[in-house]
Amino acid sequence: VNSFQAGLLMPIGGAEDKTGQKTVLRRFLQWCGGTKAEIVVIPSASAFALDVGDQYCAVFAQMGARHVECLHIHDRSQSNSPELLSRLEGATGIFMTGGDQLKLASLLVSTKLGEAVRCLNASGIPVAGTSAGASAMSRQMIAFGRSGAQPSQRMVQLASGLGLTESLIIDQHFSQRNRLGRLTTAVALNPGMVGVGVDENTAFEIHSDGECEVVGAGTVTIVDGRQLAYTDIYSAKRYDPVQVKGIDVQVLRSGARYLLDPQFDLYERVAG
Amino acid sequence: VNSFQAGLLMPIGGAEDKTGQKTVLRRFLQWCGGTKAEIVVIPSASAFALDVGDQYCAVFAQMGARHVECLHIHDRSQSNSPELLSRLEGATGIFMTGGDQLKLASLLVSTKLGEAVRCLNASGIPVAGTSAGASAMSRQMIAFGRSGAQPSQRMVQLASGLGLTESLIIDQHFSQRNRLGRLTTAVALNPGMVGVGVDENTAFEIHSDGECEVVGAGTVTIVDGRQLAYTDIYSAKRYDPVQVKGIDVQVLRSGARYLLDPQFDLYERVAG
Repeated sequence: VNSFQAGLLMPIGGAEDKTGQKTVLRRFLQWCGGTKAEIVVIPSASAFALDVGDQYCAVFAQMGARHVECLHIHDRSQSNSPELLSRLEGATGIFMTGGDQLKLASLLVSTKLGEAVRCLNASGIPVAGTSAGASAMSRQMIAFGRSGAQPSQRMVQLASGLGLTESLIIDQHFSQRNRLGRLTTAVALNPGMVGVGVDENTAFEIHSDGECEVVGAGTVTIVDGRQLAYTDIYSAKRYDPVQVKGIDVQVLRSGARYLLDPQFDLYERVAG
Repeated sequence: VNSFQAGLLMPIGGAEDKTGQKTVLRRFLQWCGGTKAEIVVIPSASAFALDVGDQYCAVFAQMGARHVECLHIHDRSQSNSPELLSRLEGATGIFMTGGDQLKLASLLVSTKLGEAVRCLNASGIPVAGTSAGASAMSRQMIAFGRSGAQPSQRMVQLASGLGLTESLIIDQHFSQRNRLGRLTTAVALNPGMVGVGVDENTAFEIHSDGECEVVGAGTVTIVDGRQLAYTDIYSAKRYDPVQVKGIDVQVLRSGARYLLDPQFDLYERVAG
């Protein structure tokens, strides 16, 4: 197994610029081949998937992508249909929009389409997702939760996401919605995992060799639970504060680099 | 990779007979080698781990095990210590007691000891767990939740367990505490997984070839989400009933057999 085959993973924290410099979306387009890019947009997280899908297709086309198309998915049987799967052929990038990550997961997780997205990413195709589309990249996905800086036992609800990463738990609208508490809670509930909280109009580029870079206007907060020493999350009931020790927190701005041990996550991404 | 190397996994629904026929515990002892068994008891889920550990050691010794010992773990650094790991050498079976599965997971998940238990099971060593010890076998673990027959979005809280199985979500005290709703909710949140609800004084023996058997006084309820056709769990808020379609439910009594596709779960148990 070559640990270095996995494609770029690019969670975006939502509300990225679509009318001005488009820094984040332009970056993704470049990783997908620029004017040679063939992008598939999956807008199924959204309750307004037709409009949202059209909007992203127009933005990528206007920036010069060679081909852009939308997959509209209304039920799980469609996600298992050969017709839909065939439309991923030739894609040089996949983009998942915002909305509700649990809706996206309910339609895609453990279907042929969900597996195809995971395998294409593992084979080298870049995948970006914004807001709900970012959360859904995780195997252990934050489905929803409460705002707040402090962790508490009940402030986060977990579910299975698409599993593009086995070991990162991705959160979004991070500073804007005050989500440090829920991401810390998610890490305390999943010892050994690493939380990635991405601000609005900001992306975290996770490359195949473990090199990561922050792009855009805001920050990315890393909540690293790999050296978790202690948590009393089992005894701190309901919304009482939870104690944690040994969690390493980093706040990174645009241009900052971060090295993930490829053995930690990318190996699993490819091997799975 | 040989799919058939994984050891017996034996979730017990709690409150198993320890003074009469001891049907369930005796079965486990036999799988561990009977009078040649060397059993390691991990009582860390319990708030009274010393007493609970002593109790199980006494029961297994009285039934004829050659050697029984207890691992007492008070913090995660212990779970990474070579001294503790060395005490698993020679074990022919591992037994995890009841208590709080989130306590057990907080102490063991993503530590060397937690990984050792998983690897020993994958290499053929039987592992049983009762109540909390049964729940903690799952990768996607039910940490806690509400009683009730109907699924609702918030009735179950998930966390990472030990990962002895990647694809089964194990619940316990199942009929006694009316937990069909929370197990169905857990499956709806994790499409493609299979829920296993084990009654008190009852075990579900999961063998390396995928053959499963119910043992003991009560029933085992299978909530199979592999063909999940539909769920609106993303839109049915809080404690409103969640719709699900395509979940196959089976209720099985002592002696009943059930075949799990070994490709579905055991492959992942060994390969991981």
